[in-house]
Amino acid sequence: MKKLLIVGSVAFDAIETKYGKTGTILGGAGTYIALSANYFNLTSGIVSVVGKDFPQEYIDLFLERNVDIEGLEVNQTGETFFWSGKYHEDMNHRDTLETRLNVMEDFDPKVPENFRQAEVVMLGNLHPLVQLSALEQIENPELVILDTMNFWMDNNWEDLLTVISKVDVITINDEEARQLSGEFSLVRASQVIQKMGPKTVVIKKGEHGALLFQEERMFFVPALPLEEVFDPTGAGDTFAGGFSGYLTQTGDYSFDNMKLAVVYASNLASFCVEKFGADRLLDLTVEEVNERLKSFIELTQFNMKLA
Amino acid sequence: MKKLLIVGSVAFDAIETKYGKTGTILGGAGTYIALSANYFNLTSGIVSVVGKDFPQEYIDLFLERNVDIEGLEVNQTGETFFWSGKYHEDMNHRDTLETRLNVMEDFDPKVPENFRQAEVVMLGNLHPLVQLSALEQIENPELVILDTMNFWMDNNWEDLLTVISKVDVITINDEEARQLSGEFSLVRASQVIQKMGPKTVVIKKGEHGALLFQEERMFFVPALPLEEVFDPTGAGDTFAGGFSGYLTQTGDYSFDNMKLAVVYASNLASFCVEKFGADRLLDLTVEEVNERLKSFIELTQFNMKLA
Repeated sequence: MKKLLIVGSVAFDAIETKYGKTGTILGGAGTYIALSANYFNLTSGIVSVVGKDFPQEYIDLFLERNVDIEGLEVNQTGETFFWSGKYHEDMNHRDTLETRLNVMEDFDPKVPENFRQAEVVMLGNLHPLVQLSALEQIENPELVILDTMNFWMDNNWEDLLTVISKVDVITINDEEARQLSGEFSLVRASQVIQKMGPKTVVIKKGEHGALLFQEERMFFVPALPLEEVFDPTGAGDTFAGGFSGYLTQTGDYSFDNMKLAVVYASNLASFCVEKFGADRLLDLTVEEVNERLKSFIELTQFNMKLA
Repeated sequence: MKKLLIVGSVAFDAIETKYGKTGTILGGAGTYIALSANYFNLTSGIVSVVGKDFPQEYIDLFLERNVDIEGLEVNQTGETFFWSGKYHEDMNHRDTLETRLNVMEDFDPKVPENFRQAEVVMLGNLHPLVQLSALEQIENPELVILDTMNFWMDNNWEDLLTVISKVDVITINDEEARQLSGEFSLVRASQVIQKMGPKTVVIKKGEHGALLFQEERMFFVPALPLEEVFDPTGAGDTFAGGFSGYLTQTGDYSFDNMKLAVVYASNLASFCVEKFGADRLLDLTVEEVNERLKSFIELTQFNMKLA
């Protein structure tokens, strides 16, 4: 069984959508990645930091899902990273109401001994130097996947380019791909980004699906059209978790297998948005996951005979 | 060989995009539909009206492409319908600069004798009462497809509902589907619209592809990601032409065949946006069309074995 090392925030979120608002709930890129990746058959561990206020029940959630938490530092001198945001009516845009980095501010990631030989590394959105530091502790990974955000493009451009140059796959959203590349066309953006290092580029377009690019090859997976999107928080990280989890399980990093990985990824993300925060990922069954894969096949597959 | 009757505007357009601006060129929904549909093996005729200023060379274009123009009235007392617009930087939005209805204002469509038994009718965007009048002249069509726009929802709601109640398929864009149904979710919008009459709903999302709905079934085709979108004018009508043309050629109106119809439709639309106006449709070869279908298959098809 291959190992997946996840580096990413474990946090508190407070979310408001047109359907209501939450109190302080479990959030963070690393959390969504871990919960999503663990629908696959793999050994996973998370490297992150939380504060003294982080409740045991959330730690137990990771343990119940077989996420190794030796790399989850509990910093007793500070509080857990906190983010709150409010979504616009269309659910495609949101305003950040508050960000308190707290213990994340001085986070110095330590990869536990038993994950230094992880085959796959999923670097969730974090300061690029934190991502880099974690990556340097892995001995000889087979596949390194990086997720990032526009914030680091605005504030830590050179560091970001350094870490991007060292990864195999980058997953970002469409606006970030445009900002990173300076190209409006996503086809051109992916070409520019591939020259920065990653052989494979995954561009997430939210409700409009995701594109997978590698050299001349291109693949598209839609988001499953839903009757209702309740809360988009974490959908992109859930996608990254599904993508990295499937590739870890199979150990096949070919383009054809990456196609399946983005289908699994989109499938898991389609559940994430059905409830607030990570609630839907927590009550999801393997049967539901497999049943919805059939919907993806019906949604996208056709039988055309070319002359 | 089945007959496709096209009802739609034949017009002059003047277009401005970030790549430049045209003079007065050939445009109109009926034009794009006809040029696109004629990549299929069928007999097509167009019902429309132009003014005394409409040049013979444009009429010859229809004739060269085997579009029957007996129903194309030349009104010697007025001028051809004219539209000009300017696209925003992102190419997804445009401002109408000028609309002169001219001879379209009093258009009274007359379906020629030899098209009253057309099997398929494609009603392009026009006043709903004009669409209705044309439809009433067809004796017993096998399939009626309607395209419309938000303008008629704003100004001719009851007439629009009347014609919508009489068709088998409606093709509209995502914002129009939301306006028509009062539902934000496109899944719910399609359910509401199906109750208005059309058994099949096609929602066009521009660069984000198109959704095909029929009862519980749902299918998605992406737009081909392009390095450059030069001019989106007519892409939706080209899509409608491809959709109706393929269904006319095959005479198979099943959901599975409609899936192929939207793939062909999206394929033809992907060419339309590569040059100003209808220029790319005019120089397109059957080989290019078939070659790009392979790209659509590579873009969307995967091989997943479910447990």
